[in-house]
Amino acid sequence: IDAHIHVESSMLDPRIFAGEVVPRGTGAVIADPHEIANVLGVEGIRYFLQAAKGLPMDLFIMVPSCVPATSLETSGACIDEKAVAELLGMDGVVGLAEMMNFPGVIGAAPDVLAKIQAAGTARIDGHAPGLRGKALNAYLAAGMSTDHETIGIDEGREKLARGIHLLVREGSSERNLAALAPLANEYTSPRMSLACDDRTALDLLRQGHMDHSIRRAVAEGIPPIRAVAMATLNTAEHYRLRGKGAVAPGFLADLACVGSLKQMDVRMTFHRGRLAAKDGRIAEPIEILEAPAVRKTMRIGRLDAGMLKMKACSGDVPVIEIVPGQIVTRATSGRPVISAGFFESDPGKDILKLVVVERHTGRAGMSLGFVRGFGLRMGAMASSVAHDSHNLIAAGVSDQDMIAAMREVVRTGGGLAFAAGGRVAASLPLEIAGLMSRLPAPAVCAKLEELAKAASDNGCRIESPFAVLSFLALPVIPELRLTDKGLVDVMSQKIIG
Amino acid sequence: IDAHIHVESSMLDPRIFAGEVVPRGTGAVIADPHEIANVLGVEGIRYFLQAAKGLPMDLFIMVPSCVPATSLETSGACIDEKAVAELLGMDGVVGLAEMMNFPGVIGAAPDVLAKIQAAGTARIDGHAPGLRGKALNAYLAAGMSTDHETIGIDEGREKLARGIHLLVREGSSERNLAALAPLANEYTSPRMSLACDDRTALDLLRQGHMDHSIRRAVAEGIPPIRAVAMATLNTAEHYRLRGKGAVAPGFLADLACVGSLKQMDVRMTFHRGRLAAKDGRIAEPIEILEAPAVRKTMRIGRLDAGMLKMKACSGDVPVIEIVPGQIVTRATSGRPVISAGFFESDPGKDILKLVVVERHTGRAGMSLGFVRGFGLRMGAMASSVAHDSHNLIAAGVSDQDMIAAMREVVRTGGGLAFAAGGRVAASLPLEIAGLMSRLPAPAVCAKLEELAKAASDNGCRIESPFAVLSFLALPVIPELRLTDKGLVDVMSQKIIG
Repeated sequence: IDAHIHVESSMLDPRIFAGEVVPRGTGAVIADPHEIANVLGVEGIRYFLQAAKGLPMDLFIMVPSCVPATSLETSGACIDEKAVAELLGMDGVVGLAEMMNFPGVIGAAPDVLAKIQAAGTARIDGHAPGLRGKALNAYLAAGMSTDHETIGIDEGREKLARGIHLLVREGSSERNLAALAPLANEYTSPRMSLACDDRTALDLLRQGHMDHSIRRAVAEGIPPIRAVAMATLNTAEHYRLRGKGAVAPGFLADLACVGSLKQMDVRMTFHRGRLAAKDGRIAEPIEILEAPAVRKTMRIGRLDAGMLKMKACSGDVPVIEIVPGQIVTRATSGRPVISAGFFESDPGKDILKLVVVERHTGRAGMSLGFVRGFGLRMGAMASSVAHDSHNLIAAGVSDQDMIAAMREVVRTGGGLAFAAGGRVAASLPLEIAGLMSRLPAPAVCAKLEELAKAASDNGCRIESPFAVLSFLALPVIPELRLTDKGLVDVMSQKIIG
Repeated sequence: IDAHIHVESSMLDPRIFAGEVVPRGTGAVIADPHEIANVLGVEGIRYFLQAAKGLPMDLFIMVPSCVPATSLETSGACIDEKAVAELLGMDGVVGLAEMMNFPGVIGAAPDVLAKIQAAGTARIDGHAPGLRGKALNAYLAAGMSTDHETIGIDEGREKLARGIHLLVREGSSERNLAALAPLANEYTSPRMSLACDDRTALDLLRQGHMDHSIRRAVAEGIPPIRAVAMATLNTAEHYRLRGKGAVAPGFLADLACVGSLKQMDVRMTFHRGRLAAKDGRIAEPIEILEAPAVRKTMRIGRLDAGMLKMKACSGDVPVIEIVPGQIVTRATSGRPVISAGFFESDPGKDILKLVVVERHTGRAGMSLGFVRGFGLRMGAMASSVAHDSHNLIAAGVSDQDMIAAMREVVRTGGGLAFAAGGRVAASLPLEIAGLMSRLPAPAVCAKLEELAKAASDNGCRIESPFAVLSFLALPVIPELRLTDKGLVDVMSQKIIG
């Protein structure tokens, strides 16, 4: 059981995701469909609930608690306390997902408290990065019972001592097992679970899912039996997953058959007593849903190079600087090259144009800025995955390539694209809400590799340029971001121009 | 937290009970009001819920699952699946109480399954004395999650291995800590709790409540921190008692302040952050409720010696034989003395008349039998506590004394009485449903001691004659019982005459 995952992070349709993880021994995931909810609201969550039906694993849903995450960008939907209450009444919905707005909780913001109240006695996941002392107490007093953002051992110890059920995260972008494994002893380990939070399709295929997490936990010194409990019983009990997490009378026969608890070499998976997968292959093919309601989400009309024109002004302009290997950015400044009175991307100084175009309302509000750190010498990339509102974002050397890449993303109903020399070099369609693909996992991985190669071939010197691009619009992580509403100074939570 | 108790076993009003246990550090009990429910049904449970209000401890209720327990006696009420569902919706009701009818569960009796279904996702307590192997599996598969009837270590190990949350019972009549303490290790102890099941007022005053259970657990080798968890956190988590069981942010400040975890010398008790008791005294007096609805429950008209006449027949008659120290009885036979063509009690052979008079419907149906083992030389005793239907039961040497004792019980609105030489020697009024007294605990204890002394002065040679008497009508424990409907052969579950 994955205690906390954003399935969207795999870019796989939830049913295709299931087809990949079930042969690796996964019996259930507790998903926070935060991304699709920011695009489609309740409709997106309904899609997950519908996709969950008839799967050879359980796809439990936590209701996203922070949709929209801020008012500094235009999201596709809003989930208020009424929607929270309504969703919590649905089959397969097990709680309120990570309450990311911890300042709102601590400051007792009425809308935040209303959602917590709407959760009633259901579990509420926490999200308390670095929160300590009295601020942590205040946050917990409001009812959150877990945290998966813990990275340090002292922080983890403090959180366990305050009653938090600790979700030890080992995902694609954040890996905390090495730091937190020493905390798992005979008293604490029943109060700890394993979670991925996010997991790329590439990592799923290469490393695995919870099988990988358990192997990692054992490698970090956690006894196999405790590691298994952290990925099964502990999670099922905390989230009150009826009939899950144990092999005993009265429990459902969700079984992973392994050769060794240390190797987690899953040979067969059973779901509710039926063979679900054997020797790495799913027992029965999983059809994905047609679901037209979640597909046409790129509500953008004409895109042309004229919209990217920026009249030059005197002096330096703000530049978002990428910090390699982290999702924080630095607020710097610079002076892009000027041509015919307009600012242009300047690959010599590694200053690229950045654009965010709103894609939910049809009004296509947009804003422009600059970014440093991609190292692109040519071409442009565009993406409909742009946390948290997932507007259309693009960065590039030439306006023409930016437009070409964005047009490709719109054409495919959402996705990732790289264009150079006026033509599309690679693209991955993400037709489901502009976040997930309907393609099989190996095809998604192949296209992701093509995209990475196209970027690299054009001079990009960072490893996951599309992942970095997807965070440049996220106005809750310091220091400087660009949303459809403008350039955001994160610390002051203000649009600065 | 007492994980399972029949408060009625203390013969104290629930609010008086609270006044006794709170100074001993009890913050909550999970009560199964099985006894009052057999007399008053939903009305009796409402009384408990009402009594719970404003107490300096929590009185959580499990809905009695077996009312009536059998059709071999006349109970005062019936709680069917509809009532179960209705009660489970009420504040303070946390689950379905011990499912005593395990043959009904295993045999899939429709009325039993209907109640289980009505419980939905609420916790259901088990009651599985000696149940092992496939029978145990079948029982658990129906949804029971605990057991407090385990007496042997192998039985306990098997139950833990099958996922049961084990309630280790240390009560007044059954004491299982010595046998089960060795089972509590680093893996199992989070899946174990302490419970009293029953606790007499005398034991409460002399030994204590959960403070005593924790002392006993520690004396049996369980580390104090685990013993405390077994009486707090483990129980709160299993029964999903929100905000209970831990000292941490987000939890209610229910605290017992002790000098030593081993001694459990409770000096102060706090409930929801307020001082509830200090130095053995409750902080604010607890008023008991008037509650006329639960008082007039002895619906019996005239009682006279003529009703005890038994026309003699030839040959031996069945005699219920008490087994000292156990609640099983033996089916024996004997020949009582005959006077003027009627059977009479025969103290020489220790054969006493036994009578059960139905007290719920007003029809006062009754039956007569014989019992061996009390050793009474004179007098008679009567009680309105007679498991499970709590009809009026009496045993004695002379018909006049039996009538005198029974009249006293009816006069006091229910209770216990001993009469000798035509007058009442001692009595304890149990006005609440004929089960619990409105007197303070020390007064109840004093009267219980007077009753025991009266019995002993009149030749009784068993230690708790009223407790033994209260079980002589219980038609679910072998071998021979007397109910208002007649003499019951327990193994065949038939009325034999």
